[in-house]
Amino acid sequence: MSKTILFKNRPKGKPATSDFEIISEEDPKPAEGEILLEAKYISVDPYLRGRMRDEKSYIPPFELGKPLESMVVAEVVESNNSNFEKGEYVSGMLQWKQLQTSNGQGLNKVHKELAPPSAFLGVLGLTGLTAYLGLDKIGKLKEGETLVVSGAAGAVGSIVGQIGKIKGCRVVGIAGSDEKVDHIKEKFGFDEGINYNTTKSMKKAISEACPDGVDVYFDNVGGEILDAVLQNVNKDARIINCGAISLYNETEVPTGPRPEGILIKKTALMQGFLIRDHAKDFGTALKQLGAWLQEGKLKYDETVVEGFEKLPEAFIGLFEGKNTGKMVVKV
Amino acid sequence: MSKTILFKNRPKGKPATSDFEIISEEDPKPAEGEILLEAKYISVDPYLRGRMRDEKSYIPPFELGKPLESMVVAEVVESNNSNFEKGEYVSGMLQWKQLQTSNGQGLNKVHKELAPPSAFLGVLGLTGLTAYLGLDKIGKLKEGETLVVSGAAGAVGSIVGQIGKIKGCRVVGIAGSDEKVDHIKEKFGFDEGINYNTTKSMKKAISEACPDGVDVYFDNVGGEILDAVLQNVNKDARIINCGAISLYNETEVPTGPRPEGILIKKTALMQGFLIRDHAKDFGTALKQLGAWLQEGKLKYDETVVEGFEKLPEAFIGLFEGKNTGKMVVKV
Repeated sequence: MSKTILFKNRPKGKPATSDFEIISEEDPKPAEGEILLEAKYISVDPYLRGRMRDEKSYIPPFELGKPLESMVVAEVVESNNSNFEKGEYVSGMLQWKQLQTSNGQGLNKVHKELAPPSAFLGVLGLTGLTAYLGLDKIGKLKEGETLVVSGAAGAVGSIVGQIGKIKGCRVVGIAGSDEKVDHIKEKFGFDEGINYNTTKSMKKAISEACPDGVDVYFDNVGGEILDAVLQNVNKDARIINCGAISLYNETEVPTGPRPEGILIKKTALMQGFLIRDHAKDFGTALKQLGAWLQEGKLKYDETVVEGFEKLPEAFIGLFEGKNTGKMVVKV
Repeated sequence: MSKTILFKNRPKGKPATSDFEIISEEDPKPAEGEILLEAKYISVDPYLRGRMRDEKSYIPPFELGKPLESMVVAEVVESNNSNFEKGEYVSGMLQWKQLQTSNGQGLNKVHKELAPPSAFLGVLGLTGLTAYLGLDKIGKLKEGETLVVSGAAGAVGSIVGQIGKIKGCRVVGIAGSDEKVDHIKEKFGFDEGINYNTTKSMKKAISEACPDGVDVYFDNVGGEILDAVLQNVNKDARIINCGAISLYNETEVPTGPRPEGILIKKTALMQGFLIRDHAKDFGTALKQLGAWLQEGKLKYDETVVEGFEKLPEAFIGLFEGKNTGKMVVKV
């Protein structure tokens, strides 16, 4: 018998453990051409909250009563497919199951010699790719510019900031505690950090931390922090709308100051970014990220929660700021 | 004696004629190297409202007690400058004066053989350039796409729509009366028009007028119309934030639904556009606009108000929808 986590209720507001159900099932058997996968590390990510809504989006919503899914690193424990050997590790969009079968489509090999397996869910996975390609495609960072990133101690944010430093920019991070602010400066080399939970005027704090104004803002949170950054942008600023975690649990349409006046005055750009649109650039980006990692220029944090059954709690923890860096569950 | 219009009060909300003062002065005399200009046509434009605020922006604010300025077509009535001949027409950013001197800097010759002089304030002036370059630089219109434009019967909007048709797009215009809606369809060839003053749900009306969704939105108005368009954008939509006339007279910070969620979901782009940043492309753009005009592919409207003293009223009329197409004052 092995365990599966089903999606039980569409959450209103913040998800609760009661929105998930853990069941036991007979172990699956791989058919001809299939492999049997044992999950090793499972990624929990804020964007999964979007799939819990019953609305059309860029990925279909999760179905009630069906298993959830996210990026998973798994070991091939049985193989009826000549492309995969028993004992190999792979990563891919897989179900929240301890054991599952796959025909191998959409799976990537995990090169354990390059980095620990869990890194393939983070710095060498969609997280690192999002940071790298979001900055590249929309941010178009230039040396000497000022880069601000929110969710700065988070998985994407901490890599964004380090790439900013590699590119010769002033980098300011926004995070939710003094510990996180210290951490991004000490470990990741950010020039400045702002704790939004203890800062009265974010507009003023950003202005002080960015004496030359903000050229690029990598936004993981949306909402009032975005408003405050907008009031500090330079001419021709670029805002990468990568996430809006501050709004994901809202039950009403969130409102705020209209941005169009500032966008016009500053000829600034705001553009949404989804990593899934950029698959053709993954190879180049991973090569660069891997090189920086090997050279010691790129560090990363992981918050590892142990135990398959802890997946719902780990996911909910994302909305409580419980992670530093990439949150993964070790099965 | 000749007349000048001074800026008397910074308006709160909608400007009033009492914010302006008309005075009489001695006729100016051109010094060595200068010319004497007699204003023939004076442009009034919504963006001038921004210069009436005492705040840092892309152009310095108007000073109280000093003459206002805008684009003007003028005749050279005296010349002490070998680059200009008496009787020539020029256009440039000039003061609201019947007579003024200039050293010739920043003035462009008006080629009266190509089009009537007032056209150089409109279709062959900043208006046409804004439509053409806004669509080109940010809109990146592709054949077969759907283009929506607000302020569609206005100076910029009517040209935007016609360029959309020339490029092979479905073009939907938003305007403030049934007459304007009929007009943009009949004269300018728009496929559909929406009267926002009589439409209950703009979201639904746009959805019906754009069965394939909105690819490009040329926004001259901001506010609730922008909100409604955003709810209908396609993946990778481009929004040109060219104007926000619906907000220019607001005295409080205008609020509305936050756009970041939609921008992410649709990987859509919003970018502010200011024509003054694109001077290096004016030549190419004017050549194309001139050619389309000669070929009869580009039509334009003018609302001509007669009399120098009517400048304040004409300007205020912009915020009351009194213009169809470019509003100019004939001196």
